[in-house]
Amino acid sequence: MTEVFSVGEPKAIDLSHHLSVIARARRPSPLKDLQRFFGKPGIIAMGGGFPSPLYFPFASVSAEGLVPESFPLTPNQTASSSNSAFSWLWKILGVPTKEKTTPLTVNKYPDQKDDLNLATALQYGLAHGLPQLQKFIEDFGARVYKPASKDVVYLVHHGNTDGWFKILMTLCNPGEGLLVAEWTYPSAMACMKPLGIKPVPLPIDEQGISSVGLRKVLAEWDEDSQGMARPHVLYTVPIGQNPTGATMGPQRKKEIYEICVEFDVIIVEDDPYYFLQLGEYLPKAQRSTNSGRAVSDEEYLANLTATFLNFDYQGRVIRLDSLSKIIAPGSRLGWFTCNPLFAERLERQAETTTQAPCGFGQTMVTSLLLHWKFDGYVRWLRALGAQYTERRDFLIDCFADEFQLEAALEHSGAWKGNTVYRAFSGRGSEKFRIMTEKAHPGVPMFSFVIPTSGMYIWMQLHLNHHPAFPDEAPAALEMKLWEQLALAGVLFSPGWMFSAETEQEDPVGGGHFRISFSHVSYDAMKGAVVVFGTEVRKFWTQR
Amino acid sequence: MTEVFSVGEPKAIDLSHHLSVIARARRPSPLKDLQRFFGKPGIIAMGGGFPSPLYFPFASVSAEGLVPESFPLTPNQTASSSNSAFSWLWKILGVPTKEKTTPLTVNKYPDQKDDLNLATALQYGLAHGLPQLQKFIEDFGARVYKPASKDVVYLVHHGNTDGWFKILMTLCNPGEGLLVAEWTYPSAMACMKPLGIKPVPLPIDEQGISSVGLRKVLAEWDEDSQGMARPHVLYTVPIGQNPTGATMGPQRKKEIYEICVEFDVIIVEDDPYYFLQLGEYLPKAQRSTNSGRAVSDEEYLANLTATFLNFDYQGRVIRLDSLSKIIAPGSRLGWFTCNPLFAERLERQAETTTQAPCGFGQTMVTSLLLHWKFDGYVRWLRALGAQYTERRDFLIDCFADEFQLEAALEHSGAWKGNTVYRAFSGRGSEKFRIMTEKAHPGVPMFSFVIPTSGMYIWMQLHLNHHPAFPDEAPAALEMKLWEQLALAGVLFSPGWMFSAETEQEDPVGGGHFRISFSHVSYDAMKGAVVVFGTEVRKFWTQR
Repeated sequence: MTEVFSVGEPKAIDLSHHLSVIARARRPSPLKDLQRFFGKPGIIAMGGGFPSPLYFPFASVSAEGLVPESFPLTPNQTASSSNSAFSWLWKILGVPTKEKTTPLTVNKYPDQKDDLNLATALQYGLAHGLPQLQKFIEDFGARVYKPASKDVVYLVHHGNTDGWFKILMTLCNPGEGLLVAEWTYPSAMACMKPLGIKPVPLPIDEQGISSVGLRKVLAEWDEDSQGMARPHVLYTVPIGQNPTGATMGPQRKKEIYEICVEFDVIIVEDDPYYFLQLGEYLPKAQRSTNSGRAVSDEEYLANLTATFLNFDYQGRVIRLDSLSKIIAPGSRLGWFTCNPLFAERLERQAETTTQAPCGFGQTMVTSLLLHWKFDGYVRWLRALGAQYTERRDFLIDCFADEFQLEAALEHSGAWKGNTVYRAFSGRGSEKFRIMTEKAHPGVPMFSFVIPTSGMYIWMQLHLNHHPAFPDEAPAALEMKLWEQLALAGVLFSPGWMFSAETEQEDPVGGGHFRISFSHVSYDAMKGAVVVFGTEVRKFWTQR
Repeated sequence: MTEVFSVGEPKAIDLSHHLSVIARARRPSPLKDLQRFFGKPGIIAMGGGFPSPLYFPFASVSAEGLVPESFPLTPNQTASSSNSAFSWLWKILGVPTKEKTTPLTVNKYPDQKDDLNLATALQYGLAHGLPQLQKFIEDFGARVYKPASKDVVYLVHHGNTDGWFKILMTLCNPGEGLLVAEWTYPSAMACMKPLGIKPVPLPIDEQGISSVGLRKVLAEWDEDSQGMARPHVLYTVPIGQNPTGATMGPQRKKEIYEICVEFDVIIVEDDPYYFLQLGEYLPKAQRSTNSGRAVSDEEYLANLTATFLNFDYQGRVIRLDSLSKIIAPGSRLGWFTCNPLFAERLERQAETTTQAPCGFGQTMVTSLLLHWKFDGYVRWLRALGAQYTERRDFLIDCFADEFQLEAALEHSGAWKGNTVYRAFSGRGSEKFRIMTEKAHPGVPMFSFVIPTSGMYIWMQLHLNHHPAFPDEAPAALEMKLWEQLALAGVLFSPGWMFSAETEQEDPVGGGHFRISFSHVSYDAMKGAVVVFGTEVRKFWTQR
């Protein structure tokens, strides 16, 4: 962390009043009485409905795992590593045979007692998963996140979407309100609403949730007029906010944490993009291919922004870590970091629903992590961040090639203090460069702030400048452009999906696209922006 | 199926009134509008937060999968395959190097477009999982279960515990009652109770839930005195009932189905032990080592008992299939078979909670199944059934060696029409044989019916014959014996865990042990019964 903040006395407080009716009703583990005998040498356990590992039809599983050094440590190396102007495009498309790998194998029966093995990993297991994975996560969490609370528990889950659902069932009762950013991850809301939990939108700025806005909502809460008690849970994606791409700095986190202490709110920090911290964007001309300063792993870790755990001296943060963006979404693996009271209830819930995460997935991922070790994993994370930085830079470059982009420091409103890029059509298909701090006489078609973390550009469409406005509402125009673009072969995400205010059936938010630079090839990104340029210009002449 | 039953007109009826408040509130898939463009050739999809497969750190995964012929087709072959009286004990302990395997490999990038591949399997996917697995399940379901309804959907889930939880959230509201066997799977209840759903116990006999009992409960339901509406969901484990081991025959299923039609009840058939149909037990002397008649796969499948799907002409059955007992519990994989209305709601629920099952698990299991094909899978299932038959027979043999067992046809009560084995201590450590139809002058310590399916012996302890009775309640005596046995090195499951009537905190059911023959080695089973013999005799002299 770049700055050190003083936090309160690191001491967990009694938070049991936050537990939902459902969480309170969960019974203790039915295995409690039996557990003290488990693993006792010589014990013959014939209580459980375990199949014999003899009948697991896998003698071993193996993998070719990529080496931690698979990608360069600094961005914009992929492009510069060849003399030919476009050969890096081929390089990034990736020929699988060129991947440098090491073999990993896990047998059904272990050579050494504590070795990873399928006889254990494919058996019914406790909901907290394989001990080897547990150990890796605990070590990683302690070294990287440095929680302020002395009393934190790490508990695996089936990915952050599953983790969030379990938190809802643990903390919230039907009819309660829940604090969310006004634009937020749609699955998080799609999961709340059927449970009768109502999103309470909070204003956001370039750092995500506004602390001023949060305090205002909480301080002015009127139970009678709102028809519900003051919310006691806050959901946030603080890094690479989904969909806006905003990054919440340490000072903002500290402010929000202190407001949550004051109003007794639990913070759920859903942080899948934490290691996709991308740094500032520089226009192509100002960018050195060797811009990535070679720093040590220690410096890299110290430069990562603080998490809410860093400020959590009371144990009121539940952090969700996911391997979806680090290893693969299909690993369906992540973990909670939280106080022991919540962790125990979350584990009980897992026992009667999902149980432990898939044994094949745990085996493969754990095997790779044990091979990589802490240092290898950090090497992988650093390179991954550099890859996403390069992808973000490339996509912005495409927009700068396709449109006339005007960069201006915003002096008011939600994006105050940030550089906003406005895109103008003006001169047909002619290509323009970024024009800095120069007022443009026309009206912009869209604008965005360049994200410093995550996977997304959050594009604001200036549909109030569209010739059909106000006869056609921005929401209708958004979908019209979205469909025109889709028919032309490019899919962005329409903004209505992310609105905390509205339902799909009645979109009024309108006027945004979320554009991901995470996965398509560089030439596809380039192609998509060209198609978008053609279609948006065409769209802007229609009415 | 051994008998053919006429069923009603195969036509799904409107069952939408069964959906819970939560299921009704789920929004349609937010991807609906986008999906029609997915997979269109040439489309550039930049909406989703997918990482590039380039960054999945696995170039390939592999496994040594067991061949379908790994175990003999008929029981009691393991023991007879050696001349030495005890060498089969060593054989069954299993030396992993002796497992006959075939190599399976799945690469990140497919050679052929439709090949299984990690780029797809480890990506975010639709909640219904990999298409290759979906296809295998559909084909298997249609050929093996032959549903009476023309309109069934197969949908993957994360194992039956997860599946059951999703069903509860889909069909039940807090405060409702739910029909269950009076002894039932504890996790099924542990999952209901926090949701405010109350188990309504049904009397059981040797075939599980009594149809007479079910009709009585439903017909005599009085909303006012019960304080809740008549239950509209029935939960049953019809084969190898957990914990009692009972098997529900086709006639009983048909009776129950028709009562459920009459009273508009949805049947949830949780059937993890379906392929562990073990046949009748024969005492060792009467058993031929070649007793297993060589039948064709067609005969084998035709001899499997009918499922509720066979009678379900209205679409009111949700069947839960699990791979936990077939492949491995750690696969966390199974599937629903049900009507499209319920399936759609279940899939929506998965989208915002667990999402698709783990990609590593799906890949490994699908890869094995595609290699085995339908015929190989059936071969595996047949042999697995034979192995469990052999294990059941061996455990019963151990009891017959250790105790004086009296077998008698029951003429009344819950076990009417069944052979009940009563165990007597009588003459100290002397060993006795099964005594058929001969009244014993003493009092039995315990009794059981030999299960014809599943993994468990459900032992009734005759604690009313214990010298401490009635000063000490059966529930207290049950735990006293359980603890004494555990300290002597043998773990059975205490009966209170399975009672639908009681909570763990206040066990009054008492007087049962569930004993699993599924996983410990043959010598451990033998040893456990000897220890049990010593301890139960000792226990019976204490007061």
